[in-house]
Amino acid sequence: MKILIFGNTFRPEAALSALRLATFLQDKHVDIWIEKGFYDFLNLQNHAFPLVYQSFEKVPELADFALSIGGDGTFLNTAMHIGSSKIPILGINTGRLGFLADVADNELEIVLDQIINNEYFIEERTVLELQTTHQDWNPSSFALNEIALLKQDSSSMIAIQVKVNGEELNTYRADGLIIATPTGSTAYSMSVGGPIVVPQANNFILAPVASHSLNIRPLIIPDNWELEVQVKSRTNSFLVALDGRSSVFDQPEILHIRKAGYSIRVVKQAHHTFFNTLKNKLMWGVDKRTEKSFNA
Amino acid sequence: MKILIFGNTFRPEAALSALRLATFLQDKHVDIWIEKGFYDFLNLQNHAFPLVYQSFEKVPELADFALSIGGDGTFLNTAMHIGSSKIPILGINTGRLGFLADVADNELEIVLDQIINNEYFIEERTVLELQTTHQDWNPSSFALNEIALLKQDSSSMIAIQVKVNGEELNTYRADGLIIATPTGSTAYSMSVGGPIVVPQANNFILAPVASHSLNIRPLIIPDNWELEVQVKSRTNSFLVALDGRSSVFDQPEILHIRKAGYSIRVVKQAHHTFFNTLKNKLMWGVDKRTEKSFNA
Amino acid sequence: MKILIFGNTFRPEAALSALRLATFLQDKHVDIWIEKGFYDFLNLQNHAFPLVYQSFEKVPELADFALSIGGDGTFLNTAMHIGSSKIPILGINTGRLGFLADVADNELEIVLDQIINNEYFIEERTVLELQTTHQDWNPSSFALNEIALLKQDSSSMIAIQVKVNGEELNTYRADGLIIATPTGSTAYSMSVGGPIVVPQANNFILAPVASHSLNIRPLIIPDNWELEVQVKSRTNSFLVALDGRSSVFDQPEILHIRKAGYSIRVVKQAHHTFFNTLKNKLMWGVDKRTEKSFNA
Amino acid sequence: MKILIFGNTFRPEAALSALRLATFLQDKHVDIWIEKGFYDFLNLQNHAFPLVYQSFEKVPELADFALSIGGDGTFLNTAMHIGSSKIPILGINTGRLGFLADVADNELEIVLDQIINNEYFIEERTVLELQTTHQDWNPSSFALNEIALLKQDSSSMIAIQVKVNGEELNTYRADGLIIATPTGSTAYSMSVGGPIVVPQANNFILAPVASHSLNIRPLIIPDNWELEVQVKSRTNSFLVALDGRSSVFDQPEILHIRKAGYSIRVVKQAHHTFFNTLKNKLMWGVDKRTEKSFNA
Repeated sequence: MKILIFGNTFRPEAALSALRLATFLQDKHVDIWIEKGFYDFLNLQNHAFPLVYQSFEKVPELADFALSIGGDGTFLNTAMHIGSSKIPILGINTGRLGFLADVADNELEIVLDQIINNEYFIEERTVLELQTTHQDWNPSSFALNEIALLKQDSSSMIAIQVKVNGEELNTYRADGLIIATPTGSTAYSMSVGGPIVVPQANNFILAPVASHSLNIRPLIIPDNWELEVQVKSRTNSFLVALDGRSSVFDQPEILHIRKAGYSIRVVKQAHHTFFNTLKNKLMWGVDKRTEKSFNA
Repeated sequence: MKILIFGNTFRPEAALSALRLATFLQDKHVDIWIEKGFYDFLNLQNHAFPLVYQSFEKVPELADFALSIGGDGTFLNTAMHIGSSKIPILGINTGRLGFLADVADNELEIVLDQIINNEYFIEERTVLELQTTHQDWNPSSFALNEIALLKQDSSSMIAIQVKVNGEELNTYRADGLIIATPTGSTAYSMSVGGPIVVPQANNFILAPVASHSLNIRPLIIPDNWELEVQVKSRTNSFLVALDGRSSVFDQPEILHIRKAGYSIRVVKQAHHTFFNTLKNKLMWGVDKRTEKSFNA
Repeated sequence: MKILIFGNTFRPEAALSALRLATFLQDKHVDIWIEKGFYDFLNLQNHAFPLVYQSFEKVPELADFALSIGGDGTFLNTAMHIGSSKIPILGINTGRLGFLADVADNELEIVLDQIINNEYFIEERTVLELQTTHQDWNPSSFALNEIALLKQDSSSMIAIQVKVNGEELNTYRADGLIIATPTGSTAYSMSVGGPIVVPQANNFILAPVASHSLNIRPLIIPDNWELEVQVKSRTNSFLVALDGRSSVFDQPEILHIRKAGYSIRVVKQAHHTFFNTLKNKLMWGVDKRTEKSFNA
Repeated sequence: MKILIFGNTFRPEAALSALRLATFLQDKHVDIWIEKGFYDFLNLQNHAFPLVYQSFEKVPELADFALSIGGDGTFLNTAMHIGSSKIPILGINTGRLGFLADVADNELEIVLDQIINNEYFIEERTVLELQTTHQDWNPSSFALNEIALLKQDSSSMIAIQVKVNGEELNTYRADGLIIATPTGSTAYSMSVGGPIVVPQANNFILAPVASHSLNIRPLIIPDNWELEVQVKSRTNSFLVALDGRSSVFDQPEILHIRKAGYSIRVVKQAHHTFFNTLKNKLMWGVDKRTEKSFNA
């Protein structure tokens, strides 16, 4: 068995988890490869790491699993590296529970045993792809959560003209527009009023940020529909952010957004259903205000 | 060709439209059948209606089209009568443009000509079905827009326990819960903050009415998922409304909600896309406030 | 010192708290009067209550404090009885923390000692008054949280025409309209999207329930402005609810809503500021989702 | 009589309006002074402007009125120049109706006659003031609409710690926080879900932009309360925008926000009440969707 390790290079806790992980997997004779950036971070942390582990810059083929140690942000970064290679990813949170990094650090050994014993399931997550006409996009043109088109600092508002399957949908006048996957429905899109979409729904969400028109609402479309987007701003430039990795674009630029040809495969424990994560993360059922009203 | 006519029995304009319709279709040698309630209303209006038309109470099989004259409410009522018979429905609005009744009264003749000449397309619309355990539901257990579970007047709040495919989702503490189709996404569900869902998306929306918990959001699920719902209230009773047709239910009652075995077929003119109707109905692109901000 | 006791007549815990309270206050030689309904409930609970306590139906004048044992609903009921008598109310919660019932049951003795020693402050809370033209309103025409005008079960929507200081404001087409005080801003009004208004702000909130128009927003006005409201519904009747006490009204009826001539005086502990209660009740600062995003 | 003219230097229509204005006021023997930037713009437009008019850079004292020709953005700019000088401002819109620029261009002469004849009223509008500790703010530290604290392009989120009158309120984790006046309640604050506040209400609004916590709501406080704000971001910098004029700030910086010592005086026609402008701008009462539901 060959396992890839990715991790948050800002959290010392991630290094400690990685160390425990390494010790545990060594006993199981698992072949461990550590992503270069995280590998360097681990060495800097001065934990005497066994030398038997390899580092890599480009994701090696034929790995069985990738482990992401950190939070949801680290998971997004891991997913970017994994790309279309189909390697299933397990998200371990070193801090608070995440939607993607939903394995608690202290359950690490139990969950790895389950994985080694084939006790897990795979959830396929849709990915968005961005295609540009004039400008290149680096380092990846794929997003697991969302593609956001946003005004730049100096601009007061942008006009985002959206065509869906060639048909004019609307010109959003707003601070921005978020195109999100179901995975992204609980991230940035939710902060601007977007609905929660279960991972199994084949949808994209279009949710404006601070729309200047009051009768605009988040829109749900099938995920096999394609978008063509043009942005106009006074400053002639705007931001494009894929899972938070942002870059400046200049007008005129035509952006094509569609479902990617691959999906990200997330490793889930048997009881880690989406509904359970929702309840834990959003504290459904524990709102203090709720109770009083019903009990008077 | 055989055409069924339904109409709003409160609007005199609907009678005038029906009269024009009858005169026009007579020349085309179309066989016209008028729904009994509307037929009686027409007679009361004292417009000398030709006697050659038939009335019906039960929808006759083998009709080619149904025309609904009124608004979206009249269309919902027509759809209830049409049920699983697959007869395509054309919605004619005698007042303001509707999402379903989207043919203007003054375009009546033009559109009928198009239909007779086969110049139209059919949009399939998902239908919800309600199955109850203890109590019967009349007159129909199907809904084209939404099924709403609501508190009764005397109750201050209800607790709505929802299972999705057998798994516990949440217990909503609210004034109510709306389960809507894409068709219903622009109706009651939208009034409580639900997103717009295009008719081609295979989804249901779960949107609470006045949720007492602030971190509850509208939820989008695939439309082949099944719901089991139980409602608890202080008064031991609650309301169930299918497309606005409401009835009182008593606890304990287990409600099963799923996609119906049939869909409603809506007749659409070539240019009457969902996006066009959205723009017209919600006045996208004409918000007065928008413009100034961009032009300073 | 003379203290009045009100309590929730559905919660056995309220009886236990009342018993502890009675024992404690007896030692302090405080004169205790118990509201008749709660008095009867206490007797039914078979706790051997000392006979020295008096019961009352009409609030006796010259009392020093009123204690409300239950939740926010019990507090609202206590406030209704206290009315314009200016007696300060202390809210004790026997279950979860309330916005009004913000003294935990287990702090009872500590807080009463503080009150006896004059270590507390008084927060004045604005009250709404309803004046009707044709129909009487019972048992009280005053509300501490909100006055809500709501559709009845059988109606699909109502039209609520509102004049402010004689000037036409809007005709809301909705399930209802809530006119709330700052105190009510964290209750029903919040469930329909209303903002939080601090108790010291001299405002009323107008917040529609399920507005059919998308460009309607909650409205904040000075609390010395007066409202004149007329409701139209298909069924010719509608509901009026004052702090949840609802009653059916028939058209035509002109409702006048204004600030009452008195305010409710709430007893607060030194550290029980509104912001602290907000943080505790709405769990500000403990949202699990928040943390991950910032820590990645 | 002495009148100051400000105008939008991007709209040729503004030049045409200014020309009509000049011609009209010349006949009335009114002394006209034109703001330097607009004056230069007018000259560039090659309309033969009479030479009798003066230009100014610093607002001359003892002027009777200021006219702002453009949109609400132009009005905000005019207000910044007018500052504490108490000169009443009339807003003329050369495009669509504004909340501040609410005089239609084609009513120009009629309204000026009314003003000359003293047929108008003055609405006082509260102004916000920003005081910084380390960095200077240019060109003005006052805002008529709102002060917004916003993340910079490269940051994913900021933490905005707010104290109100010295008491800790909340640490907002969001894209930003808007502190708005009643005047600003229909501008940026409304785009992020803030309520409408009538100009006569003595309030400020605190409304977060894309809050990561779902149970945060817009907050209404009295306008004599003072805010102390600290912002933390990963990039150690953030944006501060006063009425859209934005500037980059570096941590650590303590911002003090309070009501300014002066208010802006807006000239209003007799029938131009706030409610009328609301109805016109937000199209209350003309929502197409509304009607159908009620008429079925």
